[in-house]
Amino acid sequence: MKKAVILLSGGLDSATIIYVAKSKGYKPYCLIFDYGQRHRKEINQAKRIAEHTKSKYYLVKIDLPWGGSSLLDKTKNIPKNRSIDHKDIPSTYVPARNIIFLSFAASYAEALGAEAVFIGANAVDYSGYPDCRPEFFDSYQAALKKGMKQGVEGNSVKIFTPLLNKTKAQIIKMGVKLKVPYHMTWSCYVGASRPCGECDSCILRQKGFDSAGVVDPVIKI
Amino acid sequence: MKKAVILLSGGLDSATIIYVAKSKGYKPYCLIFDYGQRHRKEINQAKRIAEHTKSKYYLVKIDLPWGGSSLLDKTKNIPKNRSIDHKDIPSTYVPARNIIFLSFAASYAEALGAEAVFIGANAVDYSGYPDCRPEFFDSYQAALKKGMKQGVEGNSVKIFTPLLNKTKAQIIKMGVKLKVPYHMTWSCYVGASRPCGECDSCILRQKGFDSAGVVDPVIKI
Repeated sequence: MKKAVILLSGGLDSATIIYVAKSKGYKPYCLIFDYGQRHRKEINQAKRIAEHTKSKYYLVKIDLPWGGSSLLDKTKNIPKNRSIDHKDIPSTYVPARNIIFLSFAASYAEALGAEAVFIGANAVDYSGYPDCRPEFFDSYQAALKKGMKQGVEGNSVKIFTPLLNKTKAQIIKMGVKLKVPYHMTWSCYVGASRPCGECDSCILRQKGFDSAGVVDPVIKI
Repeated sequence: MKKAVILLSGGLDSATIIYVAKSKGYKPYCLIFDYGQRHRKEINQAKRIAEHTKSKYYLVKIDLPWGGSSLLDKTKNIPKNRSIDHKDIPSTYVPARNIIFLSFAASYAEALGAEAVFIGANAVDYSGYPDCRPEFFDSYQAALKKGMKQGVEGNSVKIFTPLLNKTKAQIIKMGVKLKVPYHMTWSCYVGASRPCGECDSCILRQKGFDSAGVVDPVIKI
């Protein structure tokens, strides 16, 4: 069976890509990152989702002591009720986050002999992070081809971004068909007992479920 | 003063680049990685070198539980007395190692407001690792430009590889002029009390000192 490394955050996009990868005939091997984010909820949900799908996973702990993001620093505020049609990069941007995550995924994929890495990045209903844009993935793919043994040997690991150009509503509709357990997902940046409903991530999620005409199984305040 | 993030391993190449960066007017900020290598000697020497140069440093601990390298797995043998004119990639290759190191360096540089990252990679007297070749660094630089806030804003962090096209002897001659403390460096992969003299790294080091006509201050067996 073909193997794929899946970057799994506990959010709805990454939960969906496990099922997309499975539907394409890949056996998923998940990487969950503890990178000093403000709360453990998404990590715990990611583990539950990996177990639910009977996928092997590693929890990779990394330390980014230099910060540079409101997502890493509890003394900073998470932006609330921001327009999601903005052009600027918000304070929740973590410097080089996907660049770091993909570097571990590439290492794991090569050691495992996996031919694919799946990442649930989205460049439509998203927060404007530069490392979620198609041009970034294209150039990162080229770098892997030049810098890895698999690449030099002509069988470079392929980065798949199946959600990149879909709206959140399209993702949810597809996920419902694939029976993604959205009740297990966690999107809110804040990490209180219930989703805050005001951060970028909550707003994008709510818009997606509303547009898809699907009831979000995670209860909001 | 301009800031530069320096990838520091404790070997002679990375010790040299701190001094190259300083000679070009950069204040060095070092990253030392504990990535599960077979021994702590190079990490300890890297710390000593950072302290000797009065540079701030972070020790970044990362876990690569999937292995894929004789440098990570003590049950595997380190190749001995290998021809250094080979074309194949040896078992000491660590999947995506420089790709991972550079991703942390890029994150640190952006959070710090540094404009440069220095890496002591060499593509002349080296072990044939694909992530030490010029074409890799060019493509990785392009990926950072697309995937980071600094890049999008038009002031992408620049990766400097000042040793890339130099022979080991040229590096040592330059380092001697810059007063690099080579007695503090550690190159041997094995990590016994003295360098083994038989691994790729020892062989390349010895060839370099011999060709430069300089006595290696680290005593061999």
